[in-house]
Amino acid sequence: MKKFVNNPKQFVPDMLVGLARANPGTLKYVPEYNLIMRKDAPNDNKVSIIQGSGSGHEPAHVMAVGRGMLDAACPGDVFSAPPVDYITETTKLLRSAKGVLYLVNNYTGDRLAFEMASELSDAEGIHVETLIIDDDVSVSNSTYTVGRRGVAGNFFVIKAVGAASEKGASIERLLEIGKKVNGVTRSMGIALSSCTPPAKGVPLFAIAEDEMEVGIGIHGEPGRRRAKIGNADEIVTLLLDAIVTDLPYKNGDRVALMVNGLGGTPISELYLLYGLAHAQLEKRGIQIGRSYVGEYCTSLEMAGASITLVRLDNEIETLLAADAETPIRVF
Amino acid sequence: MKKFVNNPKQFVPDMLVGLARANPGTLKYVPEYNLIMRKDAPNDNKVSIIQGSGSGHEPAHVMAVGRGMLDAACPGDVFSAPPVDYITETTKLLRSAKGVLYLVNNYTGDRLAFEMASELSDAEGIHVETLIIDDDVSVSNSTYTVGRRGVAGNFFVIKAVGAASEKGASIERLLEIGKKVNGVTRSMGIALSSCTPPAKGVPLFAIAEDEMEVGIGIHGEPGRRRAKIGNADEIVTLLLDAIVTDLPYKNGDRVALMVNGLGGTPISELYLLYGLAHAQLEKRGIQIGRSYVGEYCTSLEMAGASITLVRLDNEIETLLAADAETPIRVF
Repeated sequence: MKKFVNNPKQFVPDMLVGLARANPGTLKYVPEYNLIMRKDAPNDNKVSIIQGSGSGHEPAHVMAVGRGMLDAACPGDVFSAPPVDYITETTKLLRSAKGVLYLVNNYTGDRLAFEMASELSDAEGIHVETLIIDDDVSVSNSTYTVGRRGVAGNFFVIKAVGAASEKGASIERLLEIGKKVNGVTRSMGIALSSCTPPAKGVPLFAIAEDEMEVGIGIHGEPGRRRAKIGNADEIVTLLLDAIVTDLPYKNGDRVALMVNGLGGTPISELYLLYGLAHAQLEKRGIQIGRSYVGEYCTSLEMAGASITLVRLDNEIETLLAADAETPIRVF
Repeated sequence: MKKFVNNPKQFVPDMLVGLARANPGTLKYVPEYNLIMRKDAPNDNKVSIIQGSGSGHEPAHVMAVGRGMLDAACPGDVFSAPPVDYITETTKLLRSAKGVLYLVNNYTGDRLAFEMASELSDAEGIHVETLIIDDDVSVSNSTYTVGRRGVAGNFFVIKAVGAASEKGASIERLLEIGKKVNGVTRSMGIALSSCTPPAKGVPLFAIAEDEMEVGIGIHGEPGRRRAKIGNADEIVTLLLDAIVTDLPYKNGDRVALMVNGLGGTPISELYLLYGLAHAQLEKRGIQIGRSYVGEYCTSLEMAGASITLVRLDNEIETLLAADAETPIRVF
């Protein structure tokens, strides 16, 4: 296994220790519950925003904790939902008079864990609401999901509700904003290679040297089909055809365009894809208002990329442009 | 070849088109000379800072163009020095009354190309100075280098002289600052895999499943030795032993600590390495003043990482903390 790791079972805690050490002024690691939180949270004038899911998708979501984004993250082990009691303890630590908002990507294990934690927190008198994110257009049900999966579009929801919560928005308003952003966000990805979870030690799936998985899931779940690798323009066309027709995005729309790396693809290739996607969208009469190129939601060291579009209006664009401060590139 | 690419020979221009499209407000791509420049450069109140080298190290250095960093970058093809006439044309476009500073990583091909361009620019009446960067402690001569190689420490030189130049520092002052930063900066890297240049189509070198290359060069040049992969703590110890004893960094020193990914290693592993390096340095009595975790200088999709230390003083720390705006994470 070609990885930098000590004890593979301690991979996630060891990473979180490093994250906190690299951000001593802003982040705190709580080892008892394996959570990362803002040092200045909670704040009774602000809804606390929490996300949790399996690890292995970094920077999502532990590196999205900070001013203007998440207040805390409670990650599970690699590709596993966080334990219910850790979510509950995170909720207690982040308790705010304005309530606690869970942002949950649509995977069955994550939904179950957060539903149970929500009930336990309600019993403690904490007002909890939950927002489900499901931006992946590739398949309608999947290995770990009923309905659509939540993938890189997640970051736009975090950014929008994070920005609004800094200005004191109520939890009801954050739910409205989050649903609105999720409703105009669509993603799809392609994998060129598999990845190897540290504690597993072997690749999740096999893929031939000349093949790609179209519509890959971020835990290696199958997508729409296995195909021969196309050139970059063909790949962008294939992804945009699926994404654009889904909402659909129309001539005259203004969008945010994200090209997200799945972990093993260099930034040079991501910018190459971005240039092609930008040109193709302009040909379709769709205007690019905001650009995002880099790694936002990965699958360990998987080679591959996804494209996300968000249809912008003035409200969403203002929220996406707001200042934020996290370990990852700020939106 | 598992890459997102159209015509492999057009890989670099296609990437630069994407970079400019993603940053329409700040960057301009000049296809005739394959260069990326700030839209607001040149400025006669500011020394123009140019870097060029082979491509394949992104974000270095084309994604380091922007306010507070580089004014322009003239990249060569993947792992090849830029053509002399392209450097000369870049210099003419960036001509400033305060002069033009070249930042050159120490590779023979790059040095030769920039020396010739410097002479040609002098003949045009442009005042050009050159600063050589050579932070890699692993080997003293290498495949493409007499003396030490320049690697990820490069970014600290760019950031420091970039910040000083925004405040109007003279070219002589920038040379002093750049030499000072280079003089207190040391790096070393380890590769777990090779990488495949797009136009070559095959990996640069072979490496067994249980091996690592200690002291790898960013073009796949051999380092100190080939060894069995150690665990993360052993790898950090090995890198820090080489780096710390070289300057040497001493008990009581305050440093910037960078863990840089070589392209194919996920950010989760980089933070894990960071946490271990941070703890080991504290045990040596060395205090971490600034932290950098991510990709700064890569070798396409190579799996691997490097560590860089910079000994801080008030002047360097202030320059590193200055505001900047580039496509990559701002320092």
